[in-house]
Amino acid sequence: MSQKPGIPKGTRDFNPEQMARRNYIFETIKGVFRSFGYAQIETPAMENLSTLLGKYGEEGDKLLFRVLNSGDPFSGVDFGSFRTEDGSWRSAALSSALCEKGLRYDLTVPFARFVVQHQGELSFPFKRFQIQPVWRADRPQKGRYREFYQCDVDAIGSRSQMLELELVQMVEEVFRKLDIRVVLKVNNRKVLTGLAEACGFPERVVDITVAIDKLDKIGLDAVKEEMLSKGLTPEAVAVLEPVLLLQGSFEEKISAMRRVLSGSETGLRGLDELEELFGFIASAGVTLPVEMDLSLARGLNYYTGAIFEVKALDWQIGSISGGGRYDNLTGIFGLKDMSGVGISFGADRIYDVLEGLGKFPSGLSSSATLLFANMDAESAAYVLPIASALRAKGVCTEVYPESGKLKKQFDYAARKGIPFISICGSSEAAEGKVNIKNLASGEQKSFDAGDTDGILDFFSYIA
Amino acid sequence: MSQKPGIPKGTRDFNPEQMARRNYIFETIKGVFRSFGYAQIETPAMENLSTLLGKYGEEGDKLLFRVLNSGDPFSGVDFGSFRTEDGSWRSAALSSALCEKGLRYDLTVPFARFVVQHQGELSFPFKRFQIQPVWRADRPQKGRYREFYQCDVDAIGSRSQMLELELVQMVEEVFRKLDIRVVLKVNNRKVLTGLAEACGFPERVVDITVAIDKLDKIGLDAVKEEMLSKGLTPEAVAVLEPVLLLQGSFEEKISAMRRVLSGSETGLRGLDELEELFGFIASAGVTLPVEMDLSLARGLNYYTGAIFEVKALDWQIGSISGGGRYDNLTGIFGLKDMSGVGISFGADRIYDVLEGLGKFPSGLSSSATLLFANMDAESAAYVLPIASALRAKGVCTEVYPESGKLKKQFDYAARKGIPFISICGSSEAAEGKVNIKNLASGEQKSFDAGDTDGILDFFSYIA
Repeated sequence: MSQKPGIPKGTRDFNPEQMARRNYIFETIKGVFRSFGYAQIETPAMENLSTLLGKYGEEGDKLLFRVLNSGDPFSGVDFGSFRTEDGSWRSAALSSALCEKGLRYDLTVPFARFVVQHQGELSFPFKRFQIQPVWRADRPQKGRYREFYQCDVDAIGSRSQMLELELVQMVEEVFRKLDIRVVLKVNNRKVLTGLAEACGFPERVVDITVAIDKLDKIGLDAVKEEMLSKGLTPEAVAVLEPVLLLQGSFEEKISAMRRVLSGSETGLRGLDELEELFGFIASAGVTLPVEMDLSLARGLNYYTGAIFEVKALDWQIGSISGGGRYDNLTGIFGLKDMSGVGISFGADRIYDVLEGLGKFPSGLSSSATLLFANMDAESAAYVLPIASALRAKGVCTEVYPESGKLKKQFDYAARKGIPFISICGSSEAAEGKVNIKNLASGEQKSFDAGDTDGILDFFSYIA
Repeated sequence: MSQKPGIPKGTRDFNPEQMARRNYIFETIKGVFRSFGYAQIETPAMENLSTLLGKYGEEGDKLLFRVLNSGDPFSGVDFGSFRTEDGSWRSAALSSALCEKGLRYDLTVPFARFVVQHQGELSFPFKRFQIQPVWRADRPQKGRYREFYQCDVDAIGSRSQMLELELVQMVEEVFRKLDIRVVLKVNNRKVLTGLAEACGFPERVVDITVAIDKLDKIGLDAVKEEMLSKGLTPEAVAVLEPVLLLQGSFEEKISAMRRVLSGSETGLRGLDELEELFGFIASAGVTLPVEMDLSLARGLNYYTGAIFEVKALDWQIGSISGGGRYDNLTGIFGLKDMSGVGISFGADRIYDVLEGLGKFPSGLSSSATLLFANMDAESAAYVLPIASALRAKGVCTEVYPESGKLKKQFDYAARKGIPFISICGSSEAAEGKVNIKNLASGEQKSFDAGDTDGILDFFSYIA
């Protein structure tokens, strides 16, 4: 009985070539994180549902993958009590009765749980990064998966915006190393709160921000109309109008905003923070383009200070990284006053940008440099110690496992992208020689079997 | 409302120190795999239950973590049809009605599924490695977890024992690099089949192997008695007795075994394979201790040729790696005649051995080399570009985010194991100097701010 094999929708296999490219992205990012003193942690794929539920809104709760209790999950469950009067199931409640664990939905809530659980062992500010898959029962579509890696870096336990600066510097370094031109957009949640307060509708932060965000697309008049249609008064819109007309240098914009927000303590604090951060950025000699963008509203319910988003300049795609400052992430787990700031790098989108722009370095695949063809048992025995000696010098080396048609062995090298092949038969063995051929150029050279340095030189032509 | 945070039993968080140690093991192993031309793949955490069920025996099926269907998992399920007459649940069947996906139990079945699904894109022999977590609903106990990493390397698509040799060489290299003394035990499934055939009880392979395995512990007579108690005849035991008395060199043992197995074609083929493999091992100049061990029976239902197990010589623990040859792994998914051979490195046990023997290299943690103390905003602005210049030279560098008590900043460096601290105030800024102190020796030196090479030299004392 054979099955046609497949994998669950929204999930992916990664073949060697894709892995090499993904590893290139992850290693680049990790190297930058480490150079700033951030250290890696990992948390379990499964968390208790009590840890996860209620942290991502009602919609998020529905997108959690739940893991059926092991042992006998059904005995002792009073199914009748989960029926509604019309006979349908109280699905969420019954799920919770059958499942006490779920797959992690992001790396942020597990990080908060980790910090609270291990607070006694950590040095604060605690600077960590975490690169692991997360799972969401979203409807799969192009670019949206049910399993995908997140790549998060956070510092927790200090309110200093020197940490925001570090994130900015890490964004600069990562994309410089990956050779992707980007712009970093920066906003501050307190400024958004201030705008809503200044115009007398403190509870309409989202509507106001969404409307401002449309300025480029629909123009000034349409934005004003949208604000009115959302119930703002003409007076409120008049207060906000200078924000829509903002022009000039960073300093000029900040001055104009100070006038708009003069009545909002929170708003003015947000402007102070933006000024401080842009000052840090200038001091540190950051050359990345950084723009203040007052329409940026990512994770509005969550962030309390700086908000970040990274856009690729040469490839049309949504944001490829984003994050911000949160003041109360660990509060839900009982640890108050732990301010933190973090950013998440979108590995799948970065992959698409690098692929789209043809910016993956060549030679990323982990193929061997040299294949020893296998002529017969005696010749194979002759080349085995030579292969070991080359590996000891760092040369990735294969010995073809089966003697037989050379054509097949050449094809193997070609398909795997192995650039050199060595064919040693009885005459080479008798003379203690190794023949090596550069498959691209056709150049062929003979070496003494012990001359690993000579062989390395030959390889370095293409390394 | 605050919750006391915790994680599901049998799962673990890994803190920065543990991660550094785990990464050391994984990076060492990966480097060896790559040097032999093995390439990395990854598969999804969730597989269709149809892929997983029936592959690990009845016991294994019970240990699968099942993932509740998303959307509304309960509507349309006729619960009544899953009740037995006594009112209890047909638990496995109901689970399958509610869950179509499960968490992967090992990396072998997903690998077989991968090979069949992607056969058209792969070059054979296909040499892959895979390092990912697996999940088992086992009862957690010391050293046994519900989530743990497996670290598998396999070559599929060739019957040549040159591939077995590569596994032996990789075992040698991995443990040489990790500085763990090990012995590799080798057996062959066909020899075990042959023994059972030779004594006239072909269906008693397991009983016979288990009895032979006890020789060292309970002695010759007790083993013979156990065989009799399992229903073997005195004649059968007499046939097997020479195996229990095996002595001498590898060649002498093989000769003795040839006499015992003279009536079993399969058994003789197993001996041929062992001889061939030991011949390859000698040709390749392997210095790892490799022992033939006829009692080795790991994965008996699964392996068809060579069987491997690695034991640490200086630390009491079970086997730390193991594997073998399988001739029909992909048959269940419809792809016949795909012989393969693989080995799995037990990362958790290797971790325990390295920790027990104190063999983790020092300085594994990814702490920064240098911490710039933060005296005040002006001084921080002064050191920021210097920190960037050092990072560009590969020095992992932190800038303490908050100005304030130096004691706190020194404590931070000490707790994180940062070996150098730099304290630059207004006078250093005025003179364009950088003071750096080696916290272990107390040595202190002053450099020109631009003299990154001089600073690197100072660090190299301890690098």
